[in-house]
Parts: sequence; structure tokens; C-alpha cells
Amino acid sequence: MHPYSRLQAFTRQVFIQLGCSPNDAELAADVLVSADLRGVDSHGVARLPGYVRLYEAGRLNPKPVMRVVHETPGTATLDGDRGLGLVVAPRAMNIAVEKARHVGAGWVSIRNSNHFGIAGYHAMLALEHDMIGMAMTNAAPLVTPTFSRQRLLGTNPIAVAVPALHQPPFVADFASTAVAYGKLEILQRQGVPAPEGWVQDRDGNPSTDADAIRNGGALLPLGSDRERGSHKGYGLGAVVDIFSGVLSGANYGPWVPPFATAGFMAGAGNPVGLGTGHFVGALRLDAFRPAEEFKTHMDNWIRTFRNAPAVAGQRVLIPGDPERACETERRAAGIPLSPAVIADLEILGRKLGVPFA
Amino acid sequence: MHPYSRLQAFTRQVFIQLGCSPNDAELAADVLVSADLRGVDSHGVARLPGYVRLYEAGRLNPKPVMRVVHETPGTATLDGDRGLGLVVAPRAMNIAVEKARHVGAGWVSIRNSNHFGIAGYHAMLALEHDMIGMAMTNAAPLVTPTFSRQRLLGTNPIAVAVPALHQPPFVADFASTAVAYGKLEILQRQGVPAPEGWVQDRDGNPSTDADAIRNGGALLPLGSDRERGSHKGYGLGAVVDIFSGVLSGANYGPWVPPFATAGFMAGAGNPVGLGTGHFVGALRLDAFRPAEEFKTHMDNWIRTFRNAPAVAGQRVLIPGDPERACETERRAAGIPLSPAVIADLEILGRKLGVPFA
Repeated sequence: MHPYSRLQAFTRQVFIQLGCSPNDAELAADVLVSADLRGVDSHGVARLPGYVRLYEAGRLNPKPVMRVVHETPGTATLDGDRGLGLVVAPRAMNIAVEKARHVGAGWVSIRNSNHFGIAGYHAMLALEHDMIGMAMTNAAPLVTPTFSRQRLLGTNPIAVAVPALHQPPFVADFASTAVAYGKLEILQRQGVPAPEGWVQDRDGNPSTDADAIRNGGALLPLGSDRERGSHKGYGLGAVVDIFSGVLSGANYGPWVPPFATAGFMAGAGNPVGLGTGHFVGALRLDAFRPAEEFKTHMDNWIRTFRNAPAVAGQRVLIPGDPERACETERRAAGIPLSPAVIADLEILGRKLGVPFA
Repeated sequence: MHPYSRLQAFTRQVFIQLGCSPNDAELAADVLVSADLRGVDSHGVARLPGYVRLYEAGRLNPKPVMRVVHETPGTATLDGDRGLGLVVAPRAMNIAVEKARHVGAGWVSIRNSNHFGIAGYHAMLALEHDMIGMAMTNAAPLVTPTFSRQRLLGTNPIAVAVPALHQPPFVADFASTAVAYGKLEILQRQGVPAPEGWVQDRDGNPSTDADAIRNGGALLPLGSDRERGSHKGYGLGAVVDIFSGVLSGANYGPWVPPFATAGFMAGAGNPVGLGTGHFVGALRLDAFRPAEEFKTHMDNWIRTFRNAPAVAGQRVLIPGDPERACETERRAAGIPLSPAVIADLEILGRKLGVPFA
């Protein structure tokens, strides 16, 4: 088990070695390690070597000068100047929150960024302001629209964070696919097949090959197949792509660049925009009804759903419940890392002169 | 086949007989018949008798005095005064469009309304203003959250309409469930079982009983089961419910009233708000980048996806393609109605003195 604070300090120091400012390095480490805390291991420190490869490939600017390139009282387009998405997205959320303060809601579309970590982190930044937060991002093409053989969409996640009064907040944070790619990677390591409905093969046939994506196959949209509504998951992923990419002037569809250097994720050539795109928003509760009134009803919503009669041996969960339980546990007991991740971080630490211990 | 114009005239006259103003009746008929045109038969004139029952039950105010009860430059909460959702939602979209004109984006949460027809109609109202339109609504509880035995959510649809330049617009319009209830009704009439992944029985077990809902079962969220991401469909439906119901002061969760008088759809007692809730929004394209630039890239997005290599015997569709093709065909050839729907409309017409022919 690795104490949270030590992982964060290590991550912070790695980003400083890349040339990030102390403030940016601190924030980036906080976003990354919060994924480990919340149990989204695929988006945590396991990705740190990827960010370093991104830097080495010249795709990451450690000292970005972000600027608003287009603006109205309620909206903005932010150019991330190839900075860490981990830092660009919180900046964008700050702008959204400020705009919401003035006109009730704020929406920021972001171009020229890269992987922003877990979407939920950014959405949750709105909570302390008594606002609903939203965050979404496009990503390298791993997903086929319904009936497509070509991968055209990323796992394109959406997060929505909603404040409550006495209850903990509602935090939905999910990919628009049947399953996140990280879940497939676990099966690959275990050498077991994937459940039906997760992937298709290169010809578009249903498949249970956990390696399907490395063999020209694809992740399936939420819904898995046409009969069970995959066109809805496709529509959702498409909306995320359009809001994040087309609205901001970032790349979209097959042009979204891969997170780091994983060859099988390589997008199309000839970029149609700048980097990866995100979209974030903030809605002031009291722009719609008194905040306390809203939050009292939100408590009632949460209690009603959490206390609903469940199928045998299960409980009805509120979005955000599992992640919060995990965070409580891991803040106390530390964060488990796989031997492979530890080995990667040790190599990284030696290379950058930041001992991992 | 029934000519579009005749169905619309009949529908308009029925609403006038209920006491709606000619303008409101015209608009309501346009929304309702547009569902038939676009192939969403479950939300078209087949529902007209339901709206009349709603009126007879004293739940529909034919002469609503809608008012904005809360407002900021970018947001509003609209009280629909128990008016037809078919009329309340377009009014809310007008407000959202006006706000977007001034501050870039406009968002309106609506309470005290009822069934608003097809979500896509309202979202598409933004298109002519070079805006992205969004519309969503909560609905009577037919859906169980993951692991729940109790129905707590409606089919809670979301629509997003995005303008393009030379290409027709992108119009996603989908329920947050594996399947719409109308599809189950078709199977009920045919007496055939439902595909796996659509419904569960009263104990929460997977079921293929097309009558499951009348027998205490439920529709499943998009994703169908936990392994294939039903918690994501649940999260999506929950967000729609919170934006439409909790934000506006309408009912939410199990308290959302049924569309008309279908007993098995009856919600919980003791309302927690006023009527049904909706949420609509409009985003000005040029609040983010020059509109022509956006639309040119949107054309590229649409062409790229539509021309992607498809699985054998299929094509990759853009959200909105099937509905538009259907509309073209039905505007020319007329709208097919089932004998049961025709019989219902004939009875309705005789009762209200509006001959259906």
C-alpha cells in the first residue's frame, strides 16, 4: 500500500522535473492521484509515464500560456497551449464558475489540450460554489459507431456533479461506451475473454477477444448493439466529441491524437484542429431556485434512490457512492499499485532523479 | 395512408375543442404530428386521446398563463401553469434562444408541465438561429436504477440538435433506456417475447416478458445490466431527472405523474413538486467560434462518419438520418396509422364533434 501523500509528492516532483511550475505540478498531481484515491486506477499514477512520453514527444508544453480566444458573458473558448489537460481543465472550470456567478451558467470549450485525467475531478470543482459542474472530453478513436468497422470516437466520458445538503454530492462520471478501456486491459493481463457486448472484431462481428482492439477491432458504444440501443451510446459519444472538438477548434472523430504513444491508438493524419478538446460547464443552483431548497430536494432524491428495495444481495447506489467509499478507505489505508505500475514508476523516477519509494 | 395536413388539421381542431387558443392548438398539432412524420409513432397522434384524458382529469390547463418564476441573464425557471407540454417546451426554447442571443447560452428549467411530445422537435427549434439546441424531460417511473426492484425513473429522453453547413443537421434524440416503451407495446400486440436486455421482472431478474411492466417489472437503463454499463444509463436518466425536476421545482423520481391515466404507470403519492419537468438549452455557435467555421467542420464530421466503412449489409448513420428519411417519405406518401389508432381517433372525433376522416 502506498500512502496518498507520498504518491502525490512523487507525482508533483515528476511534473516539476518536466518544467511545470510548482502550482501546476501540485494541481496536476492532485488530479492524477485523486483518480487512484477514487478507484479509477486506469487514470491515476499508472498514466504518469505516459504524460512523460507526451512531453518527450514534444506534445506537452510544461509552461503553457493559456488564453481565452473567444468569449461571451456566458461562454468562452480556451486555448490550452498544449499544457497538461490536468491543469487546463481546472482553469477552464474556474472560468465557467466565474461566468456562472455573473450570468447564471458558464460554458467553456477547450482546444489544444491533452488527456485531462478523470472527468469527475473537474466537474466536482463546481460543488463548493453551490453549482452543478459538468466536464467531458473527447479522446483517441477506439470506438465504432453502430454498424461501423472504423473506429471514429473515443471513450468520451461525461461527468456531472450535483451538490446536496446533508447527503454527499451526486457525482456521475462515465464513459459513453459499454466498458472503459482499463477494464479490458485487466482482462488482457489475466488472459481471460471479455464479456459479450464489450468489443467487436475488425469485421464488426461481436467478439469476446480481450485483445480485439489490438487486432483491429473496437470498443462498443454504451448499449453494445443496435437492438439494445448502441445508437444511443454512439449519439452520446458523438455529442461529447462535437462539444469538445468541433465547438472548440480541437481535433475530433478519428483525428483526436492518442494519449501518449500507443501505436494502436494512432489517429488519422492531417489534424483538423488543435490537440484534444474538452467541454466544461457550471450552473448556479440559485439561478433556478433558492439553493437551499434545491439541496433539500436533492437530499430527498438521494435518500429515495439509495433506500429503494434492491435485488437480492445488492444495493441501489447513488452515482459517486463507490468512488467516495474507495477514497475514504484509500486515504486511510493507502493506494494499492500493481507490480508493473511500481516498476514503471521506479524506472521513471531513476530517469528523472526523483526516487520512487 | 393519412395525409400529413389532414392529421394536423384534425389534431389542431381537437385542441381547439379543449379550449386552446388557435396559435397554441396549431403549435401543439405541429409537435404531435411531427412525431408521426419522423417515424416516432408512439409520440404522435396515437397519444392525442391521452392528452384529452389529461384534460378530462383536470390536469391540463388549455389556457395556461406561463411565467418565469426565477431568472438570471443566462437562465430561467418557467412555470408552465399545467399547459400542454407541447406548447410549454417551445416557449421555454424561445426564452433559451433569446438568452443565448444575449449571453452566448441560455438554459431554462420547466415545472408544472406535462408530456412534451418528441424531445427532438424542441431541440431543433435552435437550428434556424445557428445555435445548438438541447431538450430533455423526466417522465413517469418505468425504469429501475441498476440493482433496484423499484421503478424510480422515466425513460427520460435527451435531444441534441447541431447545425451543419451543407449537410443536414445532426439530431440525436434518445431515451436513456435500452429501448423506448413504444417498442415493447408493439411486441405486446404481436404476442412475442422481448429481446434480452430490455426489461426485468418484479424481482429484478432479467426477463423477456414483453408484459413485464404490467406485471411489476421494469424497463432497464441503457446498458441493460451492470456488466455492460447499465449504471451509466441510470446515471444519464438521473441527470435528466435532476435537471428537469429538482432544478425546476417539478416532481422527480417516483413522484413524476403518469402521462395520462394508465394505472400501471401511477407514480408515488404526495407530490414533491409541480407536474412534470423539462430542461432545454441553446448554445450560440458563434459564442465559441465563427459559425461558418463551426458548420464547415460539422460538415466534415458528418461526411466522415457517414462514409465510414460499415459492417456487411449496413450503413453508418448520422443521428437524425432515419427520422429525416422517414419525414421525406411520409410528407409525400402520407402517414400510416394502425387500425387501433384510427378507431381511437374516430371515437375521439365523434365525442368532440371533430370528424376524423
